[in-house]
Formats: sequence, structure tokens, C-alpha cells
Amino acid sequence: MAGQHLLVPRLEGVSREQFMQHYYPQRKPLVLEGIDLGPCTSKWTVDYLSQVGGNKEVKIHVAAVAQMDFISKNFVYRTLPFDQLVQRAAEKKHKEFFISEDEKYYLRSLGEDPRKVMDNFLIQVTGKKRVVLFSPRDAQYLYLKGTKSEVLNIDNPDLAKYPLFSKARRYECSLEAGDVLFIPALWFHNVISEEFGVGVNIFWKHLPSECYDKTDTYGNKDPTAASRAAQILDRALKTLAELPEEYRDFYARRMVVHIQDKAYSKNFE
Amino acid sequence: MAGQHLLVPRLEGVSREQFMQHYYPQRKPLVLEGIDLGPCTSKWTVDYLSQVGGNKEVKIHVAAVAQMDFISKNFVYRTLPFDQLVQRAAEKKHKEFFISEDEKYYLRSLGEDPRKVMDNFLIQVTGKKRVVLFSPRDAQYLYLKGTKSEVLNIDNPDLAKYPLFSKARRYECSLEAGDVLFIPALWFHNVISEEFGVGVNIFWKHLPSECYDKTDTYGNKDPTAASRAAQILDRALKTLAELPEEYRDFYARRMVVHIQDKAYSKNFE
Repeated sequence: MAGQHLLVPRLEGVSREQFMQHYYPQRKPLVLEGIDLGPCTSKWTVDYLSQVGGNKEVKIHVAAVAQMDFISKNFVYRTLPFDQLVQRAAEKKHKEFFISEDEKYYLRSLGEDPRKVMDNFLIQVTGKKRVVLFSPRDAQYLYLKGTKSEVLNIDNPDLAKYPLFSKARRYECSLEAGDVLFIPALWFHNVISEEFGVGVNIFWKHLPSECYDKTDTYGNKDPTAASRAAQILDRALKTLAELPEEYRDFYARRMVVHIQDKAYSKNFE
Repeated sequence: MAGQHLLVPRLEGVSREQFMQHYYPQRKPLVLEGIDLGPCTSKWTVDYLSQVGGNKEVKIHVAAVAQMDFISKNFVYRTLPFDQLVQRAAEKKHKEFFISEDEKYYLRSLGEDPRKVMDNFLIQVTGKKRVVLFSPRDAQYLYLKGTKSEVLNIDNPDLAKYPLFSKARRYECSLEAGDVLFIPALWFHNVISEEFGVGVNIFWKHLPSECYDKTDTYGNKDPTAASRAAQILDRALKTLAELPEEYRDFYARRMVVHIQDKAYSKNFE
């Protein structure tokens, strides 16, 4: 039983005003085509990047497969000079390699976690990516471990192990050079690079600035109200833990019903 | 699709020690037979009760059907002298009546709510009762409104309206004069008197005395740790309410997963 498959809508020639007034408030992923990104889409070739980037050493993720797994960590960290990395990443088969001749490389310029509480434009400057997104509403079907889904093989999921995953609605898009994908805060995304390319992510705060943790350099901490609520909940659970198991279970279930009643959205799909 | 039907086990000649050491800790309903209840089971006839009870006025529940509904309140309160009540309650058809010739009467000597956080012996002194019980673990299938189930017609439930009710495991027993039913704290029970009779309930505290609210005369308040946890949870939800709906929903779902993970029992069925 496969889940619902949906395409991320594509829009060409949307102006800043149209986006801000009409599309942005809908809080749904969207591919914008034909945005003027300047000369980078044609200029950032392998040769150009190797030349301009130079031979400064960079730390990279190296994995045997395209789907990097940030839970079991199916990758190793290695170091390469930037220009060599670019050359290697652009090859189909590698003469020199760390783990296998078709290993994949990933250079991330900032922290590990996807930015989860900020809005995001993923700008596909060069190369191709396939991006699959899941709504925060479907988090309950994603078998989250922390903020990441345990379901790694989203194209052929183990439904015996992850039966609810079939309920998650899958939003998919293919990004080509020049495409800009809007990823609203809280949306889960799974990215596969289909060929060598450069992506630039622009993150910005959706909520008023005071909603965020000021020490949150990478923008992946929960809004402060959510962290405080989680801390308060932990106090409630500590109190509940004073009771024997059967009572604790019973009242925990009552708490869940109360949260569902008071805090779940009723009016958005 | 009917739920699982189970019989409440019956045990004859269980000693106090056997009950306390072996059966009580299992926290499951149980019918004890052959307990020495003294002469009441034969002595408390309609005539004896009328005579001994006298004509003091008592407030009673009067309903057209045996299944009294404490949510929609399908009964009226009326007053009768105790001896007349006993006479009337023992009739099949009533010559004098309040609402119908086969109306049912119920005299309860204490508050309305079932004692839900105390352990309970329901002693069937005379008459017959059918009792259906549901485990606190199945609370999620009972469509609770406060502490009571909205599913009143448990023998022929409206499964279109209450689909989850079919998952609730139904424990049933018939009590006859002399039977003693152990109802552990938190178990839901639905009682139908099949003929005129007298039941005596004995409630006692299962948890150490300091776990209960000292102002709780009737023993139906939640243990203090559970009330405090619920209050703390309300503070958490108030904090969460500072966030816009999509974030509130998302983090509320995370809180639910956290409660399920931390406070639900994993090892009891």
C-alpha cells in the first residue's frame, strides 16, 4: 500500500510581491522557475569552481550510496583539497577513492542538521536533485528519531517495520539548474543529488525574531515557546512518575487526549 | 465487528491471605464465591427491609430503562418513603409510578460518581446484576467524557459513531446473591440490575494514603500526582499556545510522542 504521491507545484515568473502576498502565507512547498539568479548557473562549472575554490582542505561526507543516513551514519568524514573534491565529485567512477569507486561526496558548509524551524529557499545553482518532502502534519507517520525519520529507503520502505509510513503524503520534485525550492519551516525533506551540482540554501525566520533562541546559530533549535513547553511537560511526567505503573499509564493517556483536544489543529489538512 | 468478550474469572473459597498475596496484586477483576457474608443474603428480603428501613423519605433515581445514563441523565430524581421504594422496586409492573409502569429505581447512599481511584468490592447481597468492565488500558476506545463513557448502549453500540469501541475488551460477569466482585481502581464498569436487590460497595485505598487528595470525601478525585501533572501540562499548553497554529500542532504532536515514550506502560497488556 503506497502512500499518496503528490507533485510539488511549479510556478514560473512569480514576482517577489506575488510570492510574499499569495504563496508564502500558504506554507506549502513550491518550485519557482525562471528566477534571475545571475551568472552562477552557467559560470559555476567544475573547472571554474576548482580554480576559484583553490586547494584549501575541506571536510566532506563520503558514502557508498547517494542516500546519506544521518541516523546510522552510513558515511565517513574525510578531508580533501577543495579543488580535488570538485573534480572527484564530478566523476562517475573514481580512480582514487576512500571506500568504493562509485562513492558519493557531500560538502556542507554549516552544521549537520537540516534547518528545521526556519523557512528555506533551496537554490539549485547547478546539477540535479530529487527532493521528497513530507508535511509536519504527517510527522506521526515518519518514525522520527529526534528530528529525523528512521525510514531511510523512502522509495521502497519496509512497511512491515514502518506500517504507518504508507499514510505519509509524499511531495516530490526534481530540481534542475536555476530552480528554487521553497521549503517551509517544519517540513521534512529528503534529498538525492542525481548529478554533481551546487545548491545554496537561504534560511530566514518565519516567526517574529523573539520567538527564536538567541543562541541558535544554525537555526535548528525549536522556537523557545516549544522548548519551554517541552521542559514543562517533562516536569509533568516527573510528577506522574510518582504513581505506580497502571496509574501512570492511565493518566498519561488522559494527558494525550487533552493535548489532542487543546493543541492539535482541527482546521487544516 | 464486535470487541473481544471475556469472562471475569470466578473463584470459590479464596482465603483472605490467598486473595491478598496472589490475586490482589494482579489488579484484575475477579468474582469471589462462597465468602461468608453473614445472614444478610437470606435475611434482607423485601419485607424485612421495608420493616427495618421504615418510612423515612429517600431521594431516588427513576428511569424508564435499566441502563441509567449519567451523561445525558435519562433519569429523574424523586422522593419516596424507604419502605414504599423497596416494595415498588421489587414489583415487575408498577400500579403507581412516576414515568412508566416498568420504570426502574435506584437508591444510592453516597455521591453520584463511581469511585474511580479506589479499589472496590461490590458485594451482591440479594438480587442479580450483570456487570461489564473495561480495563483502564482501553480508555482510549471508550469515548470518555470526563470519567464516563459516551457509549451507553454497550450491548448494541453505534459503531458508526464509536468505531474504536469495537477494540475495547469487554469483561463480563453475572452476580448473584453472595457473590463479591473485586473491581480494581480505574476499571470502568457498567451495571444492570436484573432484579430487585441490594448491593454494598466497600472502597479502600490502593495507594499509600498520601497519594490521595485529603479533601476527597468520596474517593473519586484523581491521585494528587495525577492532578498536579495535569495542571503542569496545562501550563505547557499555554506556553505552546504562543506559537502560530502550524507550529503548535507540530510540537503538540511531538509532546504526545514523548508522553507515549516516557509514560505509557510497555509491559502490561
